[in-house]
Amino acid sequence: MKLVRFGESGAEKPGVIDAEGRIRDLSQHVGDLAGKEIDPDALSRLAGIEIDSLPLVEGTPRLGPCVAGTGKFICIGLNYADHAAESGMDVPPEPVIFMKASSAICGPNDPIVIPRGSKKTDWEVELAVIIGRHAKYVSEEDAMDYVAGYAVTNDVSEREFQTERAGQWTKGKSCDNFGQIGPWLVTKDEITDPQNLKMWLTVNGETMQDGSSATMVYGVRHLVSYLSQFMSLHPGDVISTGTPPGVGLGMKPPRYLKAGDVVELGIDGLGSQRQDVVADA
Amino acid sequence: MKLVRFGESGAEKPGVIDAEGRIRDLSQHVGDLAGKEIDPDALSRLAGIEIDSLPLVEGTPRLGPCVAGTGKFICIGLNYADHAAESGMDVPPEPVIFMKASSAICGPNDPIVIPRGSKKTDWEVELAVIIGRHAKYVSEEDAMDYVAGYAVTNDVSEREFQTERAGQWTKGKSCDNFGQIGPWLVTKDEITDPQNLKMWLTVNGETMQDGSSATMVYGVRHLVSYLSQFMSLHPGDVISTGTPPGVGLGMKPPRYLKAGDVVELGIDGLGSQRQDVVADA
Repeated sequence: MKLVRFGESGAEKPGVIDAEGRIRDLSQHVGDLAGKEIDPDALSRLAGIEIDSLPLVEGTPRLGPCVAGTGKFICIGLNYADHAAESGMDVPPEPVIFMKASSAICGPNDPIVIPRGSKKTDWEVELAVIIGRHAKYVSEEDAMDYVAGYAVTNDVSEREFQTERAGQWTKGKSCDNFGQIGPWLVTKDEITDPQNLKMWLTVNGETMQDGSSATMVYGVRHLVSYLSQFMSLHPGDVISTGTPPGVGLGMKPPRYLKAGDVVELGIDGLGSQRQDVVADA
Repeated sequence: MKLVRFGESGAEKPGVIDAEGRIRDLSQHVGDLAGKEIDPDALSRLAGIEIDSLPLVEGTPRLGPCVAGTGKFICIGLNYADHAAESGMDVPPEPVIFMKASSAICGPNDPIVIPRGSKKTDWEVELAVIIGRHAKYVSEEDAMDYVAGYAVTNDVSEREFQTERAGQWTKGKSCDNFGQIGPWLVTKDEITDPQNLKMWLTVNGETMQDGSSATMVYGVRHLVSYLSQFMSLHPGDVISTGTPPGVGLGMKPPRYLKAGDVVELGIDGLGSQRQDVVADA
């Protein structure tokens, strides 16, 4: 299933994409795509619904983030060897973890907002893993039992805030509208191999990132198991698994976003996002 | 007012401490200490209630974290000159920000749980600022308008996870039960000068930390304003403002917690916490 949340920010309703790509209203069956509703067992039961019997949603409503109730927005740093190289960093001996503020989360087509004082706002297409069940000290073998599905994320990053403004990356990762998630929460049954998905990102139609999750250093199973050794993962938590090469920081000279730019990005089977870049008021 | 949340984890009710130190049930007036209920204006109205008319809570219930709905648990690193020195670090030119997972939050007297594989679990008494109103791009002058109040936090830290396990401190800061908050959310009217509060921490009765917020490098007004330049702060967000000297890491030789230890900590006017140290199952 391809699950969505549609409607105005803060008042989204759950929906599902039908065979013709239209949104069907899931409100009769699901309160929200959060908590127990995205437990893998609950999603399996939901898959038994006759989608074409659900009310059709008219028009083209805004899409919200495809998951709600996200307590943790965990990112993995330098998880593609080529991206580490373009950033001038070594591949780490074990996963690098940092957090984005959950308040950075927004819908897949909501604008990228350049914060005041920013000169180095950058893009990062990433494969996100959506946790569906409480996970602690889980093995790699069992890790997928705790996963609800996958989504596209844009891990928008302000490079000066991240690395030139006194320690710890979170400062450049947590600005408002720096975390587009969606369009869909694609349940894991639809993605046979998360380690072999094409990923792309364009700015004003020009290809910037053109990679594949095949070159990810630490894969999805490893990451879910690894993180669960340090902290409980809860339903709705999002793990953004790192970006392939082609970010603005890595270009010679570096290239950053400016108001008026249009960013589009997508991953095979997970849909695509489109963002206008705007300056903060 | 000294506001509390009492009861079992996940089912806490709001309360207020009366003149004799007893808990009075606030449920008739407040849904939970979260969101709009902790807006400074709402708290001012709440202060008009006749506390002695509220139902007395019998016995000594567990206390939960004194605030709910915490989206961000933001910490300030190296914010006491002496603590930076004991950590072998320089005072940073501007505040260092890192995040603790919100899933680390627990009640003030809930145990410190040593995670599997930990050898270096450490303590940090800190003054926490509780945000009461959405704040973005606010000035230092206006910063206090967005603050609901203060609380004690223990920023429990695993030093090996934090600094020896591949980049970014969050890995050693986010384990379950690594963030005791409370006992009370003390409204800001009760604390005339947050930059002049004694802070202390003992392990098995022996004083480890004995400092004052007077030696904080970046003060409360500055931090609220500073953080709001990077991201929206929302009601329930917690800013833990750094620790004075005396952590285990800074001792010669370093000293860390072990199962069976008892940690007690407190701040003038904000009450105290007591934690049993236990090993994770």
